[in-house]
Amino acid sequence: MLRLGVARLSEHLMLVTSRIMRPDDANIVGNVHGGTILKMIEEAGCIIGTRHCNTQKGDRCVAALARVERTDFLYPMFIGEVAHVSAEISYTSRHSVEVQVNVMSENILTGSRKVTNKAMLWYVPLSLQNVDRIIDVPPIEYADPDQEELGKKRYEAQKFERMETRERNGEVIVPVSVPERQTKEPYTVGFSQSSLIHLVGPSDCTLHGFVHGGVTMKLMDEVAGIVAARHCKTNIVTASVDAINFHRKIKKGCVITVSGRMTFTSNKSMEIEVFVDVDPLVEAEKGKYRAVTAFFTYISLDKDNKPLPVPPLKLEDEEEQKRFEEGKARYLQSKTKRLAEKEQNQ
Amino acid sequence: MLRLGVARLSEHLMLVTSRIMRPDDANIVGNVHGGTILKMIEEAGCIIGTRHCNTQKGDRCVAALARVERTDFLYPMFIGEVAHVSAEISYTSRHSVEVQVNVMSENILTGSRKVTNKAMLWYVPLSLQNVDRIIDVPPIEYADPDQEELGKKRYEAQKFERMETRERNGEVIVPVSVPERQTKEPYTVGFSQSSLIHLVGPSDCTLHGFVHGGVTMKLMDEVAGIVAARHCKTNIVTASVDAINFHRKIKKGCVITVSGRMTFTSNKSMEIEVFVDVDPLVEAEKGKYRAVTAFFTYISLDKDNKPLPVPPLKLEDEEEQKRFEEGKARYLQSKTKRLAEKEQNQ
Amino acid sequence: MLRLGVARLSEHLMLVTSRIMRPDDANIVGNVHGGTILKMIEEAGCIIGTRHCNTQKGDRCVAALARVERTDFLYPMFIGEVAHVSAEISYTSRHSVEVQVNVMSENILTGSRKVTNKAMLWYVPLSLQNVDRIIDVPPIEYADPDQEELGKKRYEAQKFERMETRERNGEVIVPVSVPERQTKEPYTVGFSQSSLIHLVGPSDCTLHGFVHGGVTMKLMDEVAGIVAARHCKTNIVTASVDAINFHRKIKKGCVITVSGRMTFTSNKSMEIEVFVDVDPLVEAEKGKYRAVTAFFTYISLDKDNKPLPVPPLKLEDEEEQKRFEEGKARYLQSKTKRLAEKEQNQ
Repeated sequence: MLRLGVARLSEHLMLVTSRIMRPDDANIVGNVHGGTILKMIEEAGCIIGTRHCNTQKGDRCVAALARVERTDFLYPMFIGEVAHVSAEISYTSRHSVEVQVNVMSENILTGSRKVTNKAMLWYVPLSLQNVDRIIDVPPIEYADPDQEELGKKRYEAQKFERMETRERNGEVIVPVSVPERQTKEPYTVGFSQSSLIHLVGPSDCTLHGFVHGGVTMKLMDEVAGIVAARHCKTNIVTASVDAINFHRKIKKGCVITVSGRMTFTSNKSMEIEVFVDVDPLVEAEKGKYRAVTAFFTYISLDKDNKPLPVPPLKLEDEEEQKRFEEGKARYLQSKTKRLAEKEQNQ
Repeated sequence: MLRLGVARLSEHLMLVTSRIMRPDDANIVGNVHGGTILKMIEEAGCIIGTRHCNTQKGDRCVAALARVERTDFLYPMFIGEVAHVSAEISYTSRHSVEVQVNVMSENILTGSRKVTNKAMLWYVPLSLQNVDRIIDVPPIEYADPDQEELGKKRYEAQKFERMETRERNGEVIVPVSVPERQTKEPYTVGFSQSSLIHLVGPSDCTLHGFVHGGVTMKLMDEVAGIVAARHCKTNIVTASVDAINFHRKIKKGCVITVSGRMTFTSNKSMEIEVFVDVDPLVEAEKGKYRAVTAFFTYISLDKDNKPLPVPPLKLEDEEEQKRFEEGKARYLQSKTKRLAEKEQNQ
Repeated sequence: MLRLGVARLSEHLMLVTSRIMRPDDANIVGNVHGGTILKMIEEAGCIIGTRHCNTQKGDRCVAALARVERTDFLYPMFIGEVAHVSAEISYTSRHSVEVQVNVMSENILTGSRKVTNKAMLWYVPLSLQNVDRIIDVPPIEYADPDQEELGKKRYEAQKFERMETRERNGEVIVPVSVPERQTKEPYTVGFSQSSLIHLVGPSDCTLHGFVHGGVTMKLMDEVAGIVAARHCKTNIVTASVDAINFHRKIKKGCVITVSGRMTFTSNKSMEIEVFVDVDPLVEAEKGKYRAVTAFFTYISLDKDNKPLPVPPLKLEDEEEQKRFEEGKARYLQSKTKRLAEKEQNQ
């Protein structure tokens, strides 16, 4: 059924895959995200690279992406169009595989087709038995000697560049934008505080085009969980969420920043305060605003799901001290309430 | 608990739904995220609230979440278990609907069942014709007067608390962790710089348990796109990605921080530098490291997908000036290369 | 680049697509859900059907799934394998397109390949301008007259069956949904019956804003799987799906309730009847309706993927007895058919 017009021998050297572009793949005006396309390109490359490197005896392996050459997005792609991704192995060195991937968009309503991307990826086969071992790559046959020669040149050029960036990376480890956190001492508020941004997509929204409350809560729990894990370095789970009020709506296309910081620790629990800030991006005149805040309580579990002690929070200033006291008051109040309910039920 | 023994009349006031918990719903040891459960709870509440508020003539509407009462997670839930969510309307005021939701976990292999959550949500029906209009809620019938009386008390208690937090929210707009950006001037590097965190889940990974390169690239493009949109406030699309080298693997369960900052603007394009930093969380002894960096080029489009001018980047220090010059060199180099290729093809 | 070994003319009549199976596509022991495969099959069919029906002048259209013939799952597929889906138009009538889809699993570590499914789907092109208008289908050319003759026979057979089920659907509207099940005895119908709800989001839909048939089938398989697991408490997999007719469209924003109940057990298999009921929520005046029904057959597997005996279904009333007998008839009929085909192939 896979009637590819090539010799059976080399059939495993190519792959074609197709998918309809959906609202979640695109921005609000319908342009498919470059990231969606890059992900499809890499999936095709990974399949074909892994397949090829397992056509020999010895360790089974997975092709790991080592490098992507410069990629141009020649034309925009739109929701409802079909993306056809075709991948082909174009060169092999002893330890690496070069895969050439072309992406074509097809409008199945008008029949128009356009090549939107041409990408070149380099993969390295890692053994499944020992992930630090790079295995040998089976050689491919070339249609003519020129093809091999050109591939070799590309191989050497990219090898040189990879070496160079490795050094450069080693050099500049200047933290970007955020992480003051990195300089902080463990168990301080600053050490574990975290934030994420999320671009509101169509599947996050109601028929009105406003974010479902449940989507917001899921993101809040995600940040709170990362704060708790950074503090404890163990398996952590949500124990409770305080009442949350949704005062302001969040519209499709906005960017949400969700930030969390630890406010209080008891022997066996942590309280994390979470903020949701909204940046309307395109409708910039509306300005940024805070949409929701809430307190999440987490506990830390051992391998048998039994609670572990939580390292105490190190407070560094009066603000943190004040928030800690407020957290303690909430903790004691809910403890009292729980005990009262328990008695009532007996 | 699942009080379904009621007259057919009120059947639309309740809802039961079930879903198997999947790997992506849980953390690496198999505990389902609290956020996954909160999202299911809210979806059930939204459906039942929307359904009820549309059982009358007049504007069609969607129930928007206004408040969730404190929620406890009584037992952990695991991958492979079935979550049963049952929702019931328990009270209605003139403009709001109270929904009670219970969550039960069922291990379908052993047959064991546990109530894991009880949640109470408040919804407000917003008109689809005019999203700022709250419509009237059709009243429900109560089995006995006490039920209505208790509901009214809950309604008033939450109303009071919501009022209070609205004021409190107005008061405290203290930026958390990150946003120095908020104080920055438009078109500066600091104004548009952005970062997101992502907890690596099973579906992001290869058979080795390492992140697919394509998943990383998709996150990088997402951040770059947010930086570009913050700078331009228009529809922006990826034009190209410079070569990316993947020097270090990223393991399942890690937290990835992806940060982006604008480095260069030409008349019609922007260059954004993106960094991927990895925090192994649980294997903290391994330390944090930078896994990938890359340059993304974006363009800004008008309604007809024609390129728009890009506002020039305002540089504030020597570091930014230096990066701008480097970006300019890359821009000119790729322009020269493009022209050379064009000539060659003619 | 799409070097398919066929005349350019008929190139648009086929499509090959490939995807790696991820953890979320499978159950906890790693078997890919039948529903995941059904969804991929339908996506391929929709692309090829839509593309073909737009190769003429006049209204643009989308191919809507009208029917899937009985589908057998010949071998299980596993996480990490690549699913190759190839679709080809095999017959066209004036208003419908028959698409034949084959699914092959490839283990890219061992190189082993297996045909896991062969499916036959019928599509009807609906105008994008007026969704209630079925447009004419451009005829295809056949390699030989026999091919056309056989296609015509299949067309008439399915047309007759679709008519018949339309009437049957009107008759039986017994709601399953409700978990009185909790008080039920193991192995009864009531014990394992299950239902889920799904709010139809944008990525579930075609350009018309109607649910893809594949999305519906995936949900149906999910419920059937829960029913089977509750009954057996073992690892269960989809063995086959009886022909499914899609009589009514389902719109974005609707709530779908998918319910399943066991109807029949043989020594090594179970039959589950699945209902899809639609609640338009916002357009409540349209009323609820049943969109689809189908029979799924499941088998129970041990750790080595060998079939296990299935506990016999305990029948509690005449209705259940009657459904059991009907299920038995279907079981014997398909067994006879299978044996006949086997003999023919020898």
